Amino acid sequence: MTKTRVLTGITTTGTPHLGNYVGAIKPAIAASQDPSVQSYYFMADLHALIKCQEPQRVQESRLEIAATWLALGLDTDNAIFYRQSDIPEIPELTWLLSCVCAKGLMNRAHAYKAAVAENEAAGNQDPDKGITMGLFSYPVLMAADILMFNAKKVPVGRDQIQHIEMARDMAGRFNHLFKGQYFTLPEAVVDERVEVLGGLDGRKMSKSYNNTIPLFASEKKLLKLVRKIKTNSLEPGEPKDPDNCTLFQIYSAFATQEEADAMRQEYLEGIGWGEAKNQLFELLNEHLREPRERYQALMEDPGHIEAVLLKGAERARAEAAPMMDRLRHAVGLGRFH
Amino acid sequence: MTKTRVLTGITTTGTPHLGNYVGAIKPAIAASQDPSVQSYYFMADLHALIKCQEPQRVQESRLEIAATWLALGLDTDNAIFYRQSDIPEIPELTWLLSCVCAKGLMNRAHAYKAAVAENEAAGNQDPDKGITMGLFSYPVLMAADILMFNAKKVPVGRDQIQHIEMARDMAGRFNHLFKGQYFTLPEAVVDERVEVLGGLDGRKMSKSYNNTIPLFASEKKLLKLVRKIKTNSLEPGEPKDPDNCTLFQIYSAFATQEEADAMRQEYLEGIGWGEAKNQLFELLNEHLREPRERYQALMEDPGHIEAVLLKGAERARAEAAPMMDRLRHAVGLGRFH
Repeated sequence: MTKTRVLTGITTTGTPHLGNYVGAIKPAIAASQDPSVQSYYFMADLHALIKCQEPQRVQESRLEIAATWLALGLDTDNAIFYRQSDIPEIPELTWLLSCVCAKGLMNRAHAYKAAVAENEAAGNQDPDKGITMGLFSYPVLMAADILMFNAKKVPVGRDQIQHIEMARDMAGRFNHLFKGQYFTLPEAVVDERVEVLGGLDGRKMSKSYNNTIPLFASEKKLLKLVRKIKTNSLEPGEPKDPDNCTLFQIYSAFATQEEADAMRQEYLEGIGWGEAKNQLFELLNEHLREPRERYQALMEDPGHIEAVLLKGAERARAEAAPMMDRLRHAVGLGRFH
Repeated sequence: MTKTRVLTGITTTGTPHLGNYVGAIKPAIAASQDPSVQSYYFMADLHALIKCQEPQRVQESRLEIAATWLALGLDTDNAIFYRQSDIPEIPELTWLLSCVCAKGLMNRAHAYKAAVAENEAAGNQDPDKGITMGLFSYPVLMAADILMFNAKKVPVGRDQIQHIEMARDMAGRFNHLFKGQYFTLPEAVVDERVEVLGGLDGRKMSKSYNNTIPLFASEKKLLKLVRKIKTNSLEPGEPKDPDNCTLFQIYSAFATQEEADAMRQEYLEGIGWGEAKNQLFELLNEHLREPRERYQALMEDPGHIEAVLLKGAERARAEAAPMMDRLRHAVGLGRFH
């Protein structure tokens, strides 16, 4: 095994949108095809329970996300693609790590501190009001996600670097206490160039702003949403600035360099917003038509998705189960013989 | 299923001693034979990792404890006897419960508060110094132990009542949030009459005082330890007080009423300490000879113990696995079909 192991978690509480695609899904799928890498992609559905106590939404989101990644061509022969909740070894490892993880480490976790700060700002007597043990302890679960498969590289956003450091801390402490090289120390890989798309209102496209364009909206819906993208009041014929324009930004994210250059020229020549929107729609639709069809077919065949995910889980467990055996033995929970 | 479900956890960090036997093991084994009860006995070996990071000790203690309970006649056809670490559904449920358990609840747990108080008394700047996430969050694991099997009664010491209340809290919250009667609310059963034996030095017999008589010490060792029990300096012929005497207390715990009455009479008539110790040794040895032989045979056949425990785990998982399926479905982590 000389392949670098790269592990990527996918949150499962929303419907994938264009921003997710450009910023995360597209580069991840490209990476899954790199033969020098053994990649692990998992739907972080145990994490989803921290934020979302609507079973229907969690369930739908998981299905949509699995269908999305498969429709876009995730190479599931090369990459290992699974649901976190299908790997019982992960919560087991979480407990083992809990026993070597200082509580003080969790006290300093960003997400927890932010929740406490919010309570304090709201004048709550109890700084822990509304905070569950799930929210407080999830960096331990995240460490288990990573260490379970001895992932070396973990592509994350800037806000997640701390969690990787915590995972390193737990890994190092476990290796030290139980006198062995059980865990690889993982490294965060932060891609500073992550493309952030604007949404309908010009702010960052995000579920929380309710300004998204779902990746696999129907053609009709896609056209309707593209027409809703906020533009300024410049008339057709007046030159427009491509560099501060959400429309142009989305266009560029899908266009070839040539197509983008041509559109830039049209902006300077005063293309009308209606025409620009039509062109954006055409470009998006051209890119998304085929995967959208695959997506719709997949969504109509959840049994197939289930089978693909169970096969992924089987591959993941083929590594996780012997690893847990070794870890159980290391801490004194081995078999008697 | 009209049988009452009673669940008992067994800690696995020491070697069973006479005090454990009289206070906990003997009554539990008697209870396991009650046909109106479905009892669950488990070795709490995941909990053991909180306090003990010596794998050898955890492993040995688990073996000794399993051999002890089996040698003493635990009815494993009636009772379900298993290792906690053999039930992967328990850590899974622990995570589900973490997501409905307020962190504030854990802040108020006795064991955690005691550890903080100790840090404060020692003048530590960090009140959480040396406290792991295992120690902080173990009431959630304990709730999973109980709720996994819908245990109705949980025999516990006074110090554990709070944990049962916490388990009730999590059970009620889960039932409410996910709109179903998933969990039975457990009840603590506190036996106020629990017999506490004195140890070699007259203080409560306890591993932490290093004053124990191991239940299955060899005959030679048993005699030696009985001779070490602290007595006063009264000479043979002088009347002695049975009611404030560790020796008499241990004797009574094993004797019939008649035997105890006879010994009481001998005390009043001035039995010498040497003679009293000989009689205690004889009584203990008579009771323990046979189970000791079974214990030694079991200790020499760990493969057999393993098989018994795996059978127990299989029975436990026959309940835990469908229960977890139901719970996964309840929170939105069901299968796709």
